[in-house]
Amino acid sequence: MSVDRLIRDMAEGAKGASRILRKVGRDKKDRALELMAAKLIEKRGRIQEENAKDLSLAKGKGMASALIDRLRLDDKTLRSMADGLREIAALPDPVGEVIRMWKRPNGLQVGRVRIPLGVIGFIYESRPNVTVDAAGLCLKSGNAVILKGGSEAINSNLVLAGIMAEALEDAGLPERSVQVVPTTDREAVTTLLSLEDHIDVVIPRGGEALIRYVNENSRIPVLKHYKGVCHTYVDEDADPEVASEVCFNAKVQRPGVCNAMETMLVHEKIAEAFLPPMARRFQGAGVEIRGCDRTVELLPWAKRAEESDWAEEYLDLILAIKVVSGMDEALDHIERYGSDHTEAILTKDYQRAQRFLEEVDSSVVLVNASTRFNDGNQLGLGAEIGISTSKLHAFGPMGLEELTTTKFIVYGNGQVRT
Amino acid sequence: MSVDRLIRDMAEGAKGASRILRKVGRDKKDRALELMAAKLIEKRGRIQEENAKDLSLAKGKGMASALIDRLRLDDKTLRSMADGLREIAALPDPVGEVIRMWKRPNGLQVGRVRIPLGVIGFIYESRPNVTVDAAGLCLKSGNAVILKGGSEAINSNLVLAGIMAEALEDAGLPERSVQVVPTTDREAVTTLLSLEDHIDVVIPRGGEALIRYVNENSRIPVLKHYKGVCHTYVDEDADPEVASEVCFNAKVQRPGVCNAMETMLVHEKIAEAFLPPMARRFQGAGVEIRGCDRTVELLPWAKRAEESDWAEEYLDLILAIKVVSGMDEALDHIERYGSDHTEAILTKDYQRAQRFLEEVDSSVVLVNASTRFNDGNQLGLGAEIGISTSKLHAFGPMGLEELTTTKFIVYGNGQVRT
Repeated sequence: MSVDRLIRDMAEGAKGASRILRKVGRDKKDRALELMAAKLIEKRGRIQEENAKDLSLAKGKGMASALIDRLRLDDKTLRSMADGLREIAALPDPVGEVIRMWKRPNGLQVGRVRIPLGVIGFIYESRPNVTVDAAGLCLKSGNAVILKGGSEAINSNLVLAGIMAEALEDAGLPERSVQVVPTTDREAVTTLLSLEDHIDVVIPRGGEALIRYVNENSRIPVLKHYKGVCHTYVDEDADPEVASEVCFNAKVQRPGVCNAMETMLVHEKIAEAFLPPMARRFQGAGVEIRGCDRTVELLPWAKRAEESDWAEEYLDLILAIKVVSGMDEALDHIERYGSDHTEAILTKDYQRAQRFLEEVDSSVVLVNASTRFNDGNQLGLGAEIGISTSKLHAFGPMGLEELTTTKFIVYGNGQVRT
Repeated sequence: MSVDRLIRDMAEGAKGASRILRKVGRDKKDRALELMAAKLIEKRGRIQEENAKDLSLAKGKGMASALIDRLRLDDKTLRSMADGLREIAALPDPVGEVIRMWKRPNGLQVGRVRIPLGVIGFIYESRPNVTVDAAGLCLKSGNAVILKGGSEAINSNLVLAGIMAEALEDAGLPERSVQVVPTTDREAVTTLLSLEDHIDVVIPRGGEALIRYVNENSRIPVLKHYKGVCHTYVDEDADPEVASEVCFNAKVQRPGVCNAMETMLVHEKIAEAFLPPMARRFQGAGVEIRGCDRTVELLPWAKRAEESDWAEEYLDLILAIKVVSGMDEALDHIERYGSDHTEAILTKDYQRAQRFLEEVDSSVVLVNASTRFNDGNQLGLGAEIGISTSKLHAFGPMGLEELTTTKFIVYGNGQVRT
């Protein structure tokens, strides 16, 4: 079968599965998730055998050992994947929720009820655990999913898909609710992005190049996650101890992720007292500082920032620091260089806290908390399939609700329009 | 200035205006809407002078007189446009509404608050009153808008834009909140659809060809409104009198619009009693019937439907009729030929009513009411900018809320991630 034909066949299978899935109650969906979790442990031998093929190919290609570690499905990773599925099973079913209902003057009773999106195309470059995580979220929200992972994880992804299909069958659900594209041919993505009659939304997750490619070539609506150039603004009225803890956490706790702080903005009135001890603490954790002129005056050992630093997503132990004259300059800087992802203010001042929450136009805006909280689990959505940085449909972490839409239902008793 | 440069400049202006608009309270927005309404009446001489240019060009081109009538901005039309703006002013402001707020175990207080989408590109082929209507809805929801109307209405649209800009200025709002593209050059649309950094969403409104063109050429997310092939299913337990009233209304009250019924499905048990008198009533209103074999047996004077009739959006006094063996066949038919727009069931049976509401996957699903109710005003959204037939972001009529998104706001007191 040609790649084009193969992908079309998968999309038709997914569409058929989605028609059944959308009517299924939570019992069956949760049962399938529980079975998937059990099978991940039970069949770990088979999984690890296939995973070993990916690992050995990666080694053969000279892949960095940190990246090889991310590919590995050891017992601990499999247990945590199984736990993730059980957590999704325990979440409420978003499908069927009537989010509002009202009555019209003519007696029509109008409601909005959550329904699945239909078929989701998920294109990613991540670790194989994401295959299971994304499949679980799509299934729970009543959607069929076509998963196109990275070529370096293809054997792992395919064995996981096979095991999930067994669980679906055992639970009496269509096997084709979850499908992994069984080829690394790039034509697969091109075809996938053209099937607007079969696929309702495409979610790319990976580097900026992948996301741009998907966005520019898709006829299907795309839920995008671009970069996170996240700012923390340390106001003149920040509590220095809180500021030190929160900024340190935002930069150092896990620097390689999109919600880590990349730029710290510091009010000039607090800079002299706050910056030197804060910077020493960063230095102790191996953080490289790139500062504006005034920062470098206070920290003569620091590197001077270039214009390009202000827009950089380092994803590393590097921090840009700028001393600002106040809120206005901080807000202008965020507007100019930010990526609408996550911004925080640290202050004890009520009015400035409220102003920051109101005026900053990012998907998550925080007062006195670490930018690292932009995460579906941390914010209480239960789980997330990604973080949207564009405003349509979803803005910020996308949980189960963001994998649904609403339709209108209308109870009448013979009403006509006049 | 080249067309490309012109559109880029408009988009930059819109982006700047949107940064101010998103912070503006409802007072100023409502004041601008009221001023626009007043000026439409006050300056009707100037408007009608420009409108006369469009009318005379249209006549010169031999445009059908019904279409010329749709272009005309007579006093009555202007009054109704002004009333529309005042109605929008009276609607609640969606911006700033906290749709939910909750507390996390670590004390973080997390909320979701409505914010404008930003800049909207509205591309349409409609009457010039839509220019004012769309501008009003975008302004009220805190969005800047770039309006690209049809070439046949360009003089009317430009004079309306000028008057709206005066009202915006008088109300202390940025003039470039509302801009009409001042050229009929097709390059304008191509450029508009490429400015993903400046425009947040594109809403096309018009024929299927326009919508397909926009969808296939846009890098910006598109809110689409494809065709409405709307069905009414007359169940075996339908009340014949209600069924006759509702079906007649759905087909005849305004046949040229997307929510008019195009296909009537009739249960075989009721067909013999229901169809002949119903069809005579339709015939009396000039409706042409295209029936399945069994329909034509009962109505020997009717035309036989071709396969293509089942997928046709007639937008005219034509009705396809099919006799079905029951719910299953009706649901299959809708699944196969429907356009996810509007579907209704007529029945006194509780279980079948509930099943229809649950299983039909259209943007509006009704029991015992006319399909003509798929409309933002009729369903209680206050007003609408269009009807979305794709599921992302909005499905069904789009009112003010659908012109917004939500961001997360987080109140902390020093929380960090561990």
